[in-house]
Amino acid sequence: MCLAETDDSSKILIRGGTVVNADRQFHADVYIEDGIIKLVAPDLKVPDGVRVVDATGTYVMPGGIDPHTHLAMPFMGQETCDDFFSGQAAALAGGTTMHIDFALPIGGDLLKGFESYRRKAESSCMDYGFHMAVTTWNDKVAQDMETLVKEHGINSFKFFMAYKGSLMVTDEQLLQGFKTCKSLGAVPQVHAENGDAVAEGQSRIYDLGITGPEGHALSRPSLLEGEATARAIRLAKFVNTPLYVVHVMSIDALEEIARARQAGQRVIGEPVASGLVLDDSKLWDPDFRVAAQYVMSPPIRPAGHNAALQAALSSGFLQLVGTDHCPFNSSQKAAGRGDFRKIPNGVNGIEERMHIVWDAMVNSGKISPSDYVRITSTACAQIFNIYPRKGAVLPGSDADLIILNPNKTTTISAKAHHSNIDTNIYEGWQIKGNIEVTISQGRIVWENERLNVARGAGRYVKMAPFGQLFDGIVKADIAYLSSLKAPVYRK
Amino acid sequence: MCLAETDDSSKILIRGGTVVNADRQFHADVYIEDGIIKLVAPDLKVPDGVRVVDATGTYVMPGGIDPHTHLAMPFMGQETCDDFFSGQAAALAGGTTMHIDFALPIGGDLLKGFESYRRKAESSCMDYGFHMAVTTWNDKVAQDMETLVKEHGINSFKFFMAYKGSLMVTDEQLLQGFKTCKSLGAVPQVHAENGDAVAEGQSRIYDLGITGPEGHALSRPSLLEGEATARAIRLAKFVNTPLYVVHVMSIDALEEIARARQAGQRVIGEPVASGLVLDDSKLWDPDFRVAAQYVMSPPIRPAGHNAALQAALSSGFLQLVGTDHCPFNSSQKAAGRGDFRKIPNGVNGIEERMHIVWDAMVNSGKISPSDYVRITSTACAQIFNIYPRKGAVLPGSDADLIILNPNKTTTISAKAHHSNIDTNIYEGWQIKGNIEVTISQGRIVWENERLNVARGAGRYVKMAPFGQLFDGIVKADIAYLSSLKAPVYRK
Amino acid sequence: MCLAETDDSSKILIRGGTVVNADRQFHADVYIEDGIIKLVAPDLKVPDGVRVVDATGTYVMPGGIDPHTHLAMPFMGQETCDDFFSGQAAALAGGTTMHIDFALPIGGDLLKGFESYRRKAESSCMDYGFHMAVTTWNDKVAQDMETLVKEHGINSFKFFMAYKGSLMVTDEQLLQGFKTCKSLGAVPQVHAENGDAVAEGQSRIYDLGITGPEGHALSRPSLLEGEATARAIRLAKFVNTPLYVVHVMSIDALEEIARARQAGQRVIGEPVASGLVLDDSKLWDPDFRVAAQYVMSPPIRPAGHNAALQAALSSGFLQLVGTDHCPFNSSQKAAGRGDFRKIPNGVNGIEERMHIVWDAMVNSGKISPSDYVRITSTACAQIFNIYPRKGAVLPGSDADLIILNPNKTTTISAKAHHSNIDTNIYEGWQIKGNIEVTISQGRIVWENERLNVARGAGRYVKMAPFGQLFDGIVKADIAYLSSLKAPVYRK
Amino acid sequence: MCLAETDDSSKILIRGGTVVNADRQFHADVYIEDGIIKLVAPDLKVPDGVRVVDATGTYVMPGGIDPHTHLAMPFMGQETCDDFFSGQAAALAGGTTMHIDFALPIGGDLLKGFESYRRKAESSCMDYGFHMAVTTWNDKVAQDMETLVKEHGINSFKFFMAYKGSLMVTDEQLLQGFKTCKSLGAVPQVHAENGDAVAEGQSRIYDLGITGPEGHALSRPSLLEGEATARAIRLAKFVNTPLYVVHVMSIDALEEIARARQAGQRVIGEPVASGLVLDDSKLWDPDFRVAAQYVMSPPIRPAGHNAALQAALSSGFLQLVGTDHCPFNSSQKAAGRGDFRKIPNGVNGIEERMHIVWDAMVNSGKISPSDYVRITSTACAQIFNIYPRKGAVLPGSDADLIILNPNKTTTISAKAHHSNIDTNIYEGWQIKGNIEVTISQGRIVWENERLNVARGAGRYVKMAPFGQLFDGIVKADIAYLSSLKAPVYRK
Repeated sequence: MCLAETDDSSKILIRGGTVVNADRQFHADVYIEDGIIKLVAPDLKVPDGVRVVDATGTYVMPGGIDPHTHLAMPFMGQETCDDFFSGQAAALAGGTTMHIDFALPIGGDLLKGFESYRRKAESSCMDYGFHMAVTTWNDKVAQDMETLVKEHGINSFKFFMAYKGSLMVTDEQLLQGFKTCKSLGAVPQVHAENGDAVAEGQSRIYDLGITGPEGHALSRPSLLEGEATARAIRLAKFVNTPLYVVHVMSIDALEEIARARQAGQRVIGEPVASGLVLDDSKLWDPDFRVAAQYVMSPPIRPAGHNAALQAALSSGFLQLVGTDHCPFNSSQKAAGRGDFRKIPNGVNGIEERMHIVWDAMVNSGKISPSDYVRITSTACAQIFNIYPRKGAVLPGSDADLIILNPNKTTTISAKAHHSNIDTNIYEGWQIKGNIEVTISQGRIVWENERLNVARGAGRYVKMAPFGQLFDGIVKADIAYLSSLKAPVYRK
Repeated sequence: MCLAETDDSSKILIRGGTVVNADRQFHADVYIEDGIIKLVAPDLKVPDGVRVVDATGTYVMPGGIDPHTHLAMPFMGQETCDDFFSGQAAALAGGTTMHIDFALPIGGDLLKGFESYRRKAESSCMDYGFHMAVTTWNDKVAQDMETLVKEHGINSFKFFMAYKGSLMVTDEQLLQGFKTCKSLGAVPQVHAENGDAVAEGQSRIYDLGITGPEGHALSRPSLLEGEATARAIRLAKFVNTPLYVVHVMSIDALEEIARARQAGQRVIGEPVASGLVLDDSKLWDPDFRVAAQYVMSPPIRPAGHNAALQAALSSGFLQLVGTDHCPFNSSQKAAGRGDFRKIPNGVNGIEERMHIVWDAMVNSGKISPSDYVRITSTACAQIFNIYPRKGAVLPGSDADLIILNPNKTTTISAKAHHSNIDTNIYEGWQIKGNIEVTISQGRIVWENERLNVARGAGRYVKMAPFGQLFDGIVKADIAYLSSLKAPVYRK
Repeated sequence: MCLAETDDSSKILIRGGTVVNADRQFHADVYIEDGIIKLVAPDLKVPDGVRVVDATGTYVMPGGIDPHTHLAMPFMGQETCDDFFSGQAAALAGGTTMHIDFALPIGGDLLKGFESYRRKAESSCMDYGFHMAVTTWNDKVAQDMETLVKEHGINSFKFFMAYKGSLMVTDEQLLQGFKTCKSLGAVPQVHAENGDAVAEGQSRIYDLGITGPEGHALSRPSLLEGEATARAIRLAKFVNTPLYVVHVMSIDALEEIARARQAGQRVIGEPVASGLVLDDSKLWDPDFRVAAQYVMSPPIRPAGHNAALQAALSSGFLQLVGTDHCPFNSSQKAAGRGDFRKIPNGVNGIEERMHIVWDAMVNSGKISPSDYVRITSTACAQIFNIYPRKGAVLPGSDADLIILNPNKTTTISAKAHHSNIDTNIYEGWQIKGNIEVTISQGRIVWENERLNVARGAGRYVKMAPFGQLFDGIVKADIAYLSSLKAPVYRK
Repeated sequence: MCLAETDDSSKILIRGGTVVNADRQFHADVYIEDGIIKLVAPDLKVPDGVRVVDATGTYVMPGGIDPHTHLAMPFMGQETCDDFFSGQAAALAGGTTMHIDFALPIGGDLLKGFESYRRKAESSCMDYGFHMAVTTWNDKVAQDMETLVKEHGINSFKFFMAYKGSLMVTDEQLLQGFKTCKSLGAVPQVHAENGDAVAEGQSRIYDLGITGPEGHALSRPSLLEGEATARAIRLAKFVNTPLYVVHVMSIDALEEIARARQAGQRVIGEPVASGLVLDDSKLWDPDFRVAAQYVMSPPIRPAGHNAALQAALSSGFLQLVGTDHCPFNSSQKAAGRGDFRKIPNGVNGIEERMHIVWDAMVNSGKISPSDYVRITSTACAQIFNIYPRKGAVLPGSDADLIILNPNKTTTISAKAHHSNIDTNIYEGWQIKGNIEVTISQGRIVWENERLNVARGAGRYVKMAPFGQLFDGIVKADIAYLSSLKAPVYRK
């Protein structure tokens, strides 16, 4: 790709590429002005003062949206080693132009937690949104949820069924949470593992003398993920609310989602990049530093789960791909030497996701470029109700774009990546298909393998409630009530 | 059937019938002495002083064993209206010669509860055993479980996943219970419904103004049974213990059991007579007295579930049939007029089960007489480790027998039955296939439609731990541990 | 809706409506010129000479595309009673602006059959395409398939697994057909019923003395549809070709499709309007004239199948809705009086589909208006590679549009409908949601309950091969071959 | 084990062992006289002139019955290298005391084929029965089936859905065969692979240049087995006949059987020893002689299928284990050098099955010794209606017994085995659990690692029709017909 001289960075013409949206791909130029896509049409004339990017032979696609990240998150006595600036810079270098991070409550207080995350995010260099975690239940929590939805642009809440003793909620709390979410038009999300059984499994494996990272996988097998997924799905059905299952890592969980969807239930399943392409073998690496990198929850599963997740993703049983980017440095991971239960859980991914998914899914023929756009960007925008501002190359959409050259190869490595983390779970992977240009808010932030980002340039994207997943929910409730035989009045 | 003159009631020859065991049927006479089957062979000679029963044209089968009853049980402010004498007399009239009742703890104390049930059972007129319920968890509970198994003949413990606020246990307690059961060689049993969601559903339906018995069905749909069944199965797998699911009432639960068994897990599913042949329509009967009879938990399901349960039972996906006989009189059921949540839960069945199952399953061609013996008697004896003392027509077995005439018809009614309950959920059902004679402990206790039973004649049957379900469990644990890659020792 | 004075029928502005596409809905005006949508944007100015249609309070959506019709088809000794003009006029009155009909070979000759259908279609009043049926196999058939794809705009071929002795092909032929389709980039379609077993079932039921229309349902139960669907899916997987299953009528078939898709296979399932909302009870109507109307193959199934099909359609397990519109008049149906095997198979639907699906799916809350557009129009256009010319309200798309008023009610009846058929399987159904205006090729052809159509105005729409379903197929083939361990060369 | 002096070989007392039947295990002695088990009871006294076998610390079990063998069978231009004498001698050395071989028609003539096999079997040294293959269809075939059932002791017929051009039948023939079987009370059996697709796959793989044994596996993947299994099951259901699927080799087939059984259908699934414990990796062995040994159809599958088959077998989804013993020497296998399609299909197993299954299933804790007896002997005897003459250690049963020492280890090898085949697919396997004694017809034929067999001593065991699988079939037919709404009589 060669570039014309730059004149006015707010006006860009991407010329000669194949534009890819979730519904189709076609040859067209894309004209951008003031951060907005103005025109998408073939053979646009170049006005004066416009930066021209030659996209011949490449795909012009919506920038990725990562629905699942943890920047600057305090967890297990550490804080993830990417803050909003470093994490987002890494994201942009990898073709992701927006992410939705999880804000955690502080001492159970949602509003405090949200404000804290807003402050952390002031260093942002790209657009972002928040999910809010709910880790306890009382009247104030319910009120805060309403406030967050109505005033602060939150439209999703996450519940942990694992992490007993810290984040975990009970079924009773889950039911209350689901009901409140439904009434607010916010999507409930679950981390689905049976926390009681995980605790039991951790003791069991540790007591067997298995103390290294491999103990992490052994202590929380996929059946515990399947269990919690099945439970959350049924409770959501009982409440008649949509449900979003984060980081689907196993066949067990996948099959529960498939069964529910086949019966018409609105369940979203989000696999993550690591779960799609890795298996658990690295956890047995004799080098603790290597093995510990791969510790995340739910764990990366034995081979076979990854292929099943890819298949389900290709045919729409799963809907979008996240990362659970939750990076801890080697020095942080070292806290768990001698006791896998203390290894901070989390892997990198925000920078690698777009390349990893392209290589695993498109290069293998499992999906088309349009499908790729759908699972990396459009579906997320639709689910969280920011489409078509995000997730599409359409006139009027935000100019968050990538240019991917399918014939160039790139290599992933900790040395070359932009995240603060000092390791990379994809170290040495060669990817055919390189994201050569990233445009964020109408500015070229990544080209020629160089970042050009500005601290503070990122915007908080408010997400309105009652998105597509809620369409028809009230009608379905009414239909259910009407279907009840009239109650019998007895003397 | 005509009978020869009686001489010595302790010696009986059953002549000319078709003997049916779980493995086959064949023509043979059966000779009984002192409560024990002595000979099973064709054309036995009649010694002097032997009572001869002509069984030509009939089936001679092991007496039924009902694995699931609640006699003299305090529940929801009432006590079931059959004590051990009346309930067992009804059982014998219906061809059941042994049952296993559920002893409840008193104030959480297992031993006290067990002793109380032993006293209640002193009026027994047939053989019986006990399961013990576990409704809380602490060190004393674990110790009492051990005492009950090692000294008192208990080899199964039941856990309630429903009845929030009274009997329900948490997942953590369930895991501890499962582990303790496994170590003792006792079978853990579960009442599988999600109690949190049931409570939520009850409020919801009541608040909609649905206060009658139909509200019972609406408030706890089958998906909540499926959920808890899935959960219990996975937790049992996690612990690697056998599991016994009582009263499987729905396709939802059945499918969970089928999936687990297909993967080699040892899960027993027990449908009950009412769930096999009824549907929920009676709960909408405008007469409260009628509708309230059918209130049990999990609820009797809409039509379709029953046919699926029968199919699964016929091919061995479910293993045996109980009743959950838990009778409450109309006056007791009336406690729930105006609020379905207060209707004592329970239906009759101990007297009807053998006829109901014959009619539904054998007359329809779904199963053979041998299968019938298996699901009404032999499987129960094997699971609870009292085979072949019970559950077989074999030399050496207890002389607990029935003679069923497949060409006679009988009609079920509250007027004619022997239970204390004043209604019958099978009122008016005509059954082709009549149990003409019941022999218990070698004595004819039912013939010519008359009972001849003796209060106090019943014996407590101790059941030893480590029955068939435990065969190989330790080997499997070892195999699992050996399959673990050696833990990695890191500096 | 009120209309401005007409000036130039080639310029229309639809003002004030909610535009619905498969990806979202939004408020916008739509400006049409010369048969093409020119602008879709809010608050368009009205140029002079433009007909304005007020769409306030209504949905403006792509016209329906019916993927499955049989106009002027010779079958079972009759010819369907709608020709291309009457059938298409009916379609337009019901909001369908394009259909894809099945051209049958003549004496096994594809080209002759195709030419014959082109001639029949000269009376068309709306746009249409063709699938081609393949009912035998030889070299000429393969050559003709290539000719049809490369020169005549055919990109799909249908194979019958039923109709033994006439249309049915063997597995060997099916395999050859699938391979040829794959090489040409054409979608293979199957009518999935086991024809050998159907023939057997027909004799059996007829010989039992069941000669009326109910015999039709009894002779070919859903398990035979499940069987053939499973077979076709596996053969397609073996060949690694996409597959399109027409008229999915049963849970049996649906489950096969779901299983295959979960494993990543590209299988399209097309339910039809009748199968989605009817059950088989009408086939027992004592009036032959009524019962015979409902005879189609595969048969309309017992209640329960329809609900399952709707659920699967709502969550994307099935992709689009057809009709199998194949109308025979009462006098034609009468050929099967006394022998159900001679009742010409087929029901009406081309005119009713859009209303039926709206009512069953959107009014019940199962799907959103965007989903409705997807399953009635967009998915079909994508599968058959004519998107976004058809299936979207986008600048540049054909001006095939409908305006649906969700608050108006319409009633279906044979008296009022526009098809030639003298009965209607939806007789008397009241539908909430009325299609008030249909625009075809930029002309208003239906408004104020009146048709304004021109014989011969319809255009044949050529459909190019290698549509979306083929994206990645070659890559997948290569990936498969690369995955093979190198063959072992042995001395 | 030490042996007392022999006196009269017709009287044997097996003392001190654990007797194992399908229903339970117990300590007892076994007394044999004149080829029949006379007594099974503890502490039997030793009459004079009785050979005493000390079985302390061992299991005394029914001899194995292999339901699936091919001795002296002409196939693919060769004849299997074991005749009835050598094959049966091998069987006895491995603890199998009866087998059921497949008689093939000659030129489509069943009676001729049967007679030929009767003659071949004159050299037998143990008891045996026959299934009869049906490879074409006409009136004579149907008549011969009747003759074979009514006069010659045949109660099962096998149909090949593969081997296109030689043995394969069409669906129409299959349906006729199933109907005839049902009317005769004979069990239809299927070799379930889609023969058309196999032929296609063979050409495809060969044309890719893959000519070695690995091509065998690649050319007929498990989906083709799943397809045919699904088809046979549904056609059997359509006819309402029991069905027996021979050599279930894959998850694909297993899942079809499981689904059908869950719905109450009577389908028997027979895995074979090789499929349970091997995987396909050996087919890639660079030594043709090694790789070719493992060629059988359906092929041995990739790892994972075997574990699933074991799990399903352990929980009763599959019912019994065969071998498909079909041995070809290296020189015979060499016919397929350079073209895998010409390698005679078949592996050894008749001698190894009992040890292999014990090791894989009992030693791993998956099943109990009672289960082992059920799947290796009792189930076969019940299905083919020779129980309890065979398949049980009961008074009156044939004295076909084995004594298995669970603490001894044995090693399998071609050098040590007794079959004529010059290789062994289990070469070098060490098995914990050794069959030390085999008793056939009341004579010790295997002890101290030595055979003592007599050519011609084997008896043909006639098997009566209408076995257990048919129990209730007529009732079910009647129930189905009664469930039909009365046909509608229309003027």
